[in-house]
Amino acid sequence: MNAVTFELKKTDRSTKARLGEVTTPHGKFATPVFMPVGTAATVKAMRPEEVAGLGAGIILSNTYHLYLRPGHEIIREAGGLHSFMNWKGAILTDSGGFQVFSLGDLRKITEEGVAFRSHIDGSSHMFTPETSMAVQNALGSDIIMAFDECAPYPADRAYVKQSLERTTRWLKRCKDAHLATETQSLFGIMQGGMYRDLRKQSAEEIVALDLPGYAIGGLSVGEPKDLMYEVLDDCVDHLPQDKPRYLMGVGSPDCLFEGVERGIDMFDCVLPTRIARNGMAMTSVGRVAIKNAVHERDFSPLDPNCGCDTCRNYSRSYLRHLYKSNEILSSMLLTHHNLYFLVHLMEQIRESIEQDNFLELKKDFFQKYGRF
Amino acid sequence: MNAVTFELKKTDRSTKARLGEVTTPHGKFATPVFMPVGTAATVKAMRPEEVAGLGAGIILSNTYHLYLRPGHEIIREAGGLHSFMNWKGAILTDSGGFQVFSLGDLRKITEEGVAFRSHIDGSSHMFTPETSMAVQNALGSDIIMAFDECAPYPADRAYVKQSLERTTRWLKRCKDAHLATETQSLFGIMQGGMYRDLRKQSAEEIVALDLPGYAIGGLSVGEPKDLMYEVLDDCVDHLPQDKPRYLMGVGSPDCLFEGVERGIDMFDCVLPTRIARNGMAMTSVGRVAIKNAVHERDFSPLDPNCGCDTCRNYSRSYLRHLYKSNEILSSMLLTHHNLYFLVHLMEQIRESIEQDNFLELKKDFFQKYGRF
Repeated sequence: MNAVTFELKKTDRSTKARLGEVTTPHGKFATPVFMPVGTAATVKAMRPEEVAGLGAGIILSNTYHLYLRPGHEIIREAGGLHSFMNWKGAILTDSGGFQVFSLGDLRKITEEGVAFRSHIDGSSHMFTPETSMAVQNALGSDIIMAFDECAPYPADRAYVKQSLERTTRWLKRCKDAHLATETQSLFGIMQGGMYRDLRKQSAEEIVALDLPGYAIGGLSVGEPKDLMYEVLDDCVDHLPQDKPRYLMGVGSPDCLFEGVERGIDMFDCVLPTRIARNGMAMTSVGRVAIKNAVHERDFSPLDPNCGCDTCRNYSRSYLRHLYKSNEILSSMLLTHHNLYFLVHLMEQIRESIEQDNFLELKKDFFQKYGRF
Repeated sequence: MNAVTFELKKTDRSTKARLGEVTTPHGKFATPVFMPVGTAATVKAMRPEEVAGLGAGIILSNTYHLYLRPGHEIIREAGGLHSFMNWKGAILTDSGGFQVFSLGDLRKITEEGVAFRSHIDGSSHMFTPETSMAVQNALGSDIIMAFDECAPYPADRAYVKQSLERTTRWLKRCKDAHLATETQSLFGIMQGGMYRDLRKQSAEEIVALDLPGYAIGGLSVGEPKDLMYEVLDDCVDHLPQDKPRYLMGVGSPDCLFEGVERGIDMFDCVLPTRIARNGMAMTSVGRVAIKNAVHERDFSPLDPNCGCDTCRNYSRSYLRHLYKSNEILSSMLLTHHNLYFLVHLMEQIRESIEQDNFLELKKDFFQKYGRF
């Protein structure tokens, strides 16, 4: 029995959009879902009960960061990540692969794995498929991700092909190394860059391993959005209907709509939390840069159509004051709003699929909001 | 009818400690009380409902900071400080005097008031007793403080005498300028440095003005604690029994006990919130520096005898991780704990006065805690 299971509840009549439910050892959540990111065992500037209160049933945390600080053995001793950070819902951890590849000169790839230096203190480390599984097993997250290589964009075809084939070999090693299948489920990751035939090859190779879920990696890495959507259109058709599909690192409102339309069930992105700390809000009337002078005497809420705590209790004028004064409460209130915005956007999207009007919701949204 | 009234409920048998209740246009609170500081219209790293949830009925905010940013006229337009920052309890604002005197080379004192330059942008400003009243009237705080000079320590007798006499003249101007006595109450401030006869002179001059409350300023400015207590012993005897007494800028646990013992009703200090952001916790077992390596694998709570959210839900190990990772949640959780600690310490102190065992509580506390 897999730790994590997926039930497909409905597929939209006119698009590939679908409704589902994921069951994990730490609760169920409806899909399509947006997963807030809690890199270092905290969704920045939020208490965990506040994240849960927004309606988020699953968050993402980063293996690379937790491995380096505080160290996965400490988290294991704490009883796992859920206990360590006081989060009662589900957790997905990435494999650490994306972060170590992002280190550039500080890392070296071999068939065995990736040797790298810590961005914190320069110390030397090695991540392999087996290490990544061992670390994620110690963390105790509900969904663990395969150790893959996310090829850069642009990358030539020969490189992408050998990289995705290595990713498949690494996935087999991950599957062999991951024994705790009744408490944690391993998701495979499709690669293949912007090459349709390589995407197909990657999908076939990973789907053959019959995993509880599949992710699409290597998108939103700098390519134009239209190209991403084009590749995505094709990708999903190579994945099984009865397993959840997770589009990694994507979470702007327009990408959420486009992804859902193409049959994606799960998303994550640092965007809402990161821009919040920089004073940017996602609202039903478009992006708002709170530092702008126009908000100085604006005593109306950040988003006139929002029911979140921030919009019910504080004015743009106050939020601008907090941001200009470098007050921590600025990050707290804007993060709360942005996560509420995305979590509730996904709720509306699910309702629209239920009510057979997804494309109308999408059209309305873009008319009000513009492209992000 | 004064906006703010005080009812003396009990005086301790063996000390000057007393129980009282202050009634304001924004609710009542029991005394002795500790007031959390919300300098820039926010108790740093705390939501206002969280501050209220701790049991704090009054907070302090700073006129100098709010005058410069966002500007008192904006706060007036927002409906006052309570509305601007979404705080439903009482607010005390200082006069701005202490901050402008602290500017050193950036300020110049005359009989008229203090000319100063902004620490934010270097712009030129002038605070007078009349300005301070006008700004505090715009803020709409329940208790407003007189514009005084807090003499430095050490300072020679002649300087302290002429300074306290000017402070009295300024207090008369404040009283004349403050017309909104039914919605805001003006407290006078006793000065006089470490000179007992000057303290007496100052007290007699300000008490003659029959104000709704009196503060003791110019203590905790660098003098040894024993000297502060010695001066304080004497000070209180010159103030009326039926008015609240506020010891400005003092809030370490030992000073709270010593102040209460000497008949003080109100305290404020940035200490609990500031040290929290630096990773320091006040606990029933003494100060804890959370960054220390000894906490790395300590899965017990910050304070074994504390019932706050932080201590009920998080370990020292997790709090250390957050602090070392520069996570905002570190400031949030430690600030919550430190304020809970002080607010609940004051609750215990009030109970002990009620139950005639204040000195026993004090003795027990210092035995467990040591001096701060």
